[in-house]
Amino acid sequence: MTDKTTDTTTDTHETPHTAVTVVGLGVMGHALAEAFLRAGHPVTVWNRTPDKADRLVEGGARRAGSVAEAVAASPLVVVCVSDYHAAHDLFDPLDAEILAGRVLVNLTSGTSRDARETAHWAAGRGAAYLDGAIMAAPAAIGGADTAVLYSGPASTYELHEAALRTLAGGSTYVGEDHGLASLYDAAMLSLMWNLLNGFLQGVALLGTAGVGAAAYEPVASQGIGTVVGWLAGYARNLDAGVHPGDDATLSTHLGAMAHLVEESETLGLNAELPRLIQTLAQRAVRDGRGADGYTALIDQFRKPSPEALA
Amino acid sequence: MTDKTTDTTTDTHETPHTAVTVVGLGVMGHALAEAFLRAGHPVTVWNRTPDKADRLVEGGARRAGSVAEAVAASPLVVVCVSDYHAAHDLFDPLDAEILAGRVLVNLTSGTSRDARETAHWAAGRGAAYLDGAIMAAPAAIGGADTAVLYSGPASTYELHEAALRTLAGGSTYVGEDHGLASLYDAAMLSLMWNLLNGFLQGVALLGTAGVGAAAYEPVASQGIGTVVGWLAGYARNLDAGVHPGDDATLSTHLGAMAHLVEESETLGLNAELPRLIQTLAQRAVRDGRGADGYTALIDQFRKPSPEALA
Repeated sequence: MTDKTTDTTTDTHETPHTAVTVVGLGVMGHALAEAFLRAGHPVTVWNRTPDKADRLVEGGARRAGSVAEAVAASPLVVVCVSDYHAAHDLFDPLDAEILAGRVLVNLTSGTSRDARETAHWAAGRGAAYLDGAIMAAPAAIGGADTAVLYSGPASTYELHEAALRTLAGGSTYVGEDHGLASLYDAAMLSLMWNLLNGFLQGVALLGTAGVGAAAYEPVASQGIGTVVGWLAGYARNLDAGVHPGDDATLSTHLGAMAHLVEESETLGLNAELPRLIQTLAQRAVRDGRGADGYTALIDQFRKPSPEALA
Repeated sequence: MTDKTTDTTTDTHETPHTAVTVVGLGVMGHALAEAFLRAGHPVTVWNRTPDKADRLVEGGARRAGSVAEAVAASPLVVVCVSDYHAAHDLFDPLDAEILAGRVLVNLTSGTSRDARETAHWAAGRGAAYLDGAIMAAPAAIGGADTAVLYSGPASTYELHEAALRTLAGGSTYVGEDHGLASLYDAAMLSLMWNLLNGFLQGVALLGTAGVGAAAYEPVASQGIGTVVGWLAGYARNLDAGVHPGDDATLSTHLGAMAHLVEESETLGLNAELPRLIQTLAQRAVRDGRGADGYTALIDQFRKPSPEALA
């Protein structure tokens, strides 16, 4: 049992007023610093072009003269720059003693490899590291439902969870593997773009017959709801590696895909997306999955694109 | 005012026992005939290979010796064969007087052009014509929620709506233009495939880090719900031809799309779908839509694929 009254290491315990540093004051970084200021955190800011900090300084932020000074100012350092190269350009030159013991939270967009490499780099300098993915526009920062995903050591997340919820009430910790926030981000964005493209394809198809998007939307939304109802069962099958074709087989889907391609081409619409949908299913059928259900397509998604095989 | 007691043209008024003919007894046609039989309709059936009718005849159906005999047997003729060519091969040789005054309901899968051409053909022979698209597997035929879309004259649909609801409780009339059922079908299938592919792409991405599909599914389903919440507003913008980029611009999306492509390629996953998503957005940005919102992509969907332009 730990006697809490003997614990005086105030640096490592979250209070509502943890001092935070924000490095990178683009539109998103600026929104992050503003949210911290609004919540009453002491905020130090740094940006390559210093005037980006002017409004924040007026609001009570302290402008650091260098990245080293900015990092040294706070136990919690939030980084939001254009990409991981930019982050490394700023942080690589710092002395290890400046970084040691601090918590770096990197909200820069990138891939899981970027995140894991940066975690390795931080570990070598004695810094704790969380990688985050912001699933929202800058205007949503500070909102109660705004979603940001974090991955890295659970203890580090828990230490600063209250401060991070200042940025996004819908903050979610997704796991120890530093690559997970980026992977979830990529997965959710892919889902979003595919869904929106599917909707736009339908709007284009029905538009040829004078049906407006607003007339199609309720039908589309109801149809999406039906498909969402299948996902839990499909997920169980995917995890079990079984792909029953009892609702419809890939061969049956393939027949209908040919109609979608023909319909799009005949009507003078873009048919690249329908053709790729068809091509992926054709490959699966050629691989002997014609009698399996739709989830058997996972094998096509899990291997490199054909032109990347060579 | 019509005095209903003087109306004795029983042929053209729906009763619970309208005589129906089903032409084509594949898995789907068989299910259609069975549903009519279960509901107490007098059912005549025909199939190119007659033994496909054996079980239906045991169940009370009458086997016609020819397509002409089958069509002559009932005011309502439901057709479900492999494609529109097969339908024309069967119906083109029939004398016009056999078809005149009958209602043909074609549930064969095809394109809007197939449907419109067949409607024109039927009109030339004095037959009323409905084109239908079955949005369900054969096992669902006869269900209370099973969806079938119909297009053609509203009066023809209303005349036989009760009998058609025997096949699918969720039958929906989508409009006079005979091509509409096929177009809605193509739109909804496209939406379904895009949504499922987006989900599978995410399962593949997260699978590289050991996250199972069942762990991802609730996150995915919640994310889909968020996107569905945007569709009504997006639809209004699409109909108005305005594409505000106030949530996120196409240029911002494009930056994130590059990460999805890089993530997929680095992890050895198929990147064709991410790359097509990126390519469509790149073209829109090149067309000057970078500051617009995602719906500005509709212009890309509405024009032929680049290789079809030449």
